[in-house]
Amino acid sequence: MTTVAAYAAPAAKAPLERTTIERREVREHDVLIDIKFAGICHSDIHQVQEGWGEAIFPMVPGHEIAGTVSEVGPGVTKYAVGDRVGVGCMVDSCGECDNCEAGQEQYCAAGNIGTYNAVGKDGELTYGGYSEKIVVDENFVLGIPEGIALDEAAPLLCAGITTYSPLRHWNAGPGKKVAVVGMGGLGHMGVKLAHAMGAEVTVLSQSLRKQEDGLKLGADHYYATSDPATFEQLAGTFDLIVSTVSAPLDFGAYLGLLKTDGALVNVGAPEEPVSLNLFTLLGGRKTLAGSMIGGIRETQEMLDFCAEHGLGAEIEVIAASEVNKAYERVLASDVRYRFVIDTATI
Amino acid sequence: MTTVAAYAAPAAKAPLERTTIERREVREHDVLIDIKFAGICHSDIHQVQEGWGEAIFPMVPGHEIAGTVSEVGPGVTKYAVGDRVGVGCMVDSCGECDNCEAGQEQYCAAGNIGTYNAVGKDGELTYGGYSEKIVVDENFVLGIPEGIALDEAAPLLCAGITTYSPLRHWNAGPGKKVAVVGMGGLGHMGVKLAHAMGAEVTVLSQSLRKQEDGLKLGADHYYATSDPATFEQLAGTFDLIVSTVSAPLDFGAYLGLLKTDGALVNVGAPEEPVSLNLFTLLGGRKTLAGSMIGGIRETQEMLDFCAEHGLGAEIEVIAASEVNKAYERVLASDVRYRFVIDTATI
Repeated sequence: MTTVAAYAAPAAKAPLERTTIERREVREHDVLIDIKFAGICHSDIHQVQEGWGEAIFPMVPGHEIAGTVSEVGPGVTKYAVGDRVGVGCMVDSCGECDNCEAGQEQYCAAGNIGTYNAVGKDGELTYGGYSEKIVVDENFVLGIPEGIALDEAAPLLCAGITTYSPLRHWNAGPGKKVAVVGMGGLGHMGVKLAHAMGAEVTVLSQSLRKQEDGLKLGADHYYATSDPATFEQLAGTFDLIVSTVSAPLDFGAYLGLLKTDGALVNVGAPEEPVSLNLFTLLGGRKTLAGSMIGGIRETQEMLDFCAEHGLGAEIEVIAASEVNKAYERVLASDVRYRFVIDTATI
Repeated sequence: MTTVAAYAAPAAKAPLERTTIERREVREHDVLIDIKFAGICHSDIHQVQEGWGEAIFPMVPGHEIAGTVSEVGPGVTKYAVGDRVGVGCMVDSCGECDNCEAGQEQYCAAGNIGTYNAVGKDGELTYGGYSEKIVVDENFVLGIPEGIALDEAAPLLCAGITTYSPLRHWNAGPGKKVAVVGMGGLGHMGVKLAHAMGAEVTVLSQSLRKQEDGLKLGADHYYATSDPATFEQLAGTFDLIVSTVSAPLDFGAYLGLLKTDGALVNVGAPEEPVSLNLFTLLGGRKTLAGSMIGGIRETQEMLDFCAEHGLGAEIEVIAASEVNKAYERVLASDVRYRFVIDTATI
């Protein structure tokens, strides 16, 4: 075991504080990663606050991890010391179910093992990226290509893949009109990725406050959803809408923006049930769907795609001691567009 | 104008009674059809009772129409006197929008013109199939192949296409596990069609009352949804669930029965909004969708498919004077599986 410094929430809703945790010895197929940067995802806050149900404490959040390999187990074939690597939302899965075999470990029938707030197959708690080092099975480690700075790469491991996967699955590309709902950590990556895929991209945001940024990141159009005229003007427009917001939407209104056979895909997750009139789905054979991060193979594909297109996240690098203040600012939507902890400051 | 006998509801929620209506003269592209049989669809009752909103009275319901051609306009090329033909849920559309051009007239951007309870492009009210004759543009007339009796064919024009279309669109076929929710007019056709397409078919019905029929019609399995064990036992089983019921389901429970990437498609339409926890869509990238009848081209394809596979609806032929009693029995789910009015009795 190795003792490493980390930032942890000692209990639900408690502020995060500096502490130490134990990382396991490097096993046969393990990679020891010196973490350089860790993104702050809204879901870190959901989990610290138990918004998604009972959680495990102390909790070291962080599933947007970028760093370099400092040791590998004897059986490791994919990585070598010095490699630039990342870890996302999961660190293990059963490896045997249909979904795992199809490279969709995120939908593992037994449940994937979360990077934190979870219990590994060995019975040990998992701790996330707000720490100096992490030990992960090589099959859940991603290579970060040259050409993406590690700080800008970190958020790709969740915000990037969470938007990339549904954009690919629902065929965003040339000739397609894609809307991204919400212009936050996920949304801004959705805009960059959909634009790079060749789609015509529209941002649907509460206000026009971030319009200039949106257009700069690749959006072709930008509308305020607080203006009812938006929903009249854009009726029947989109092939695909990816909603990145956690607040419950008026789904009837958003489904009205889809073309026939269009899909509204949620990657954000409201804590409360939403109300839906099914007639809004029948007229136009519309789809309401959900999508959760992406598989390991697809995450690597996304990183390679980002390198090829020169994409990284828009970030604000902070010291670890600023994490509690950063949480408040995330909740106030006051970040452009992702906080990334410089883990050298832990 | 031609005066023909019909059964009509004089006002919302009123019993239907014998009356006469006027049918237009046969125009350039019109077909005059001697109606032989007209199916009774649950949506006839919804509309007479204004369950889907304000309706137009007097109303002659009926959009499952089978008969023979008795006159054609000079410009008609598709049909000749004596042909066996059918009419479904729509009798016109704009013909110019993307959906019409794609053969999906049911999703016409301007709204398709319903066979009844609608106003045609000429400003005249449309009246449905509970009548002796109907005049329809040839482009909205279907050919009923030899080999399907007209009485068994009538319900195919709505119940048949409404289930055929989503089964085809979501790829029901060999190797696919398909569930049909509800064993009524639509559901029993869903079972026959999915079985004929080669899928492994499961009926999910409130009780096991109709199990013997379901297995006879082609179901491989039959489960009662009133038994909570059904939902445990079948968790993660289906590629596709087609729900034919109008009652609001516990969608969370039904979505739990889908495999990863599975779809729950509603062809029934509850009058009230339903409550949905979006997490049930995220885990497994699941789809909740709707589907509404089918286009004209696809309806013909469905009729040809039924002829090829020897399929028709299971029916109970009634006299027109029994229609109000039949409505009561439909509402009590007391029909196996479709009432069809012998229009010679009007």
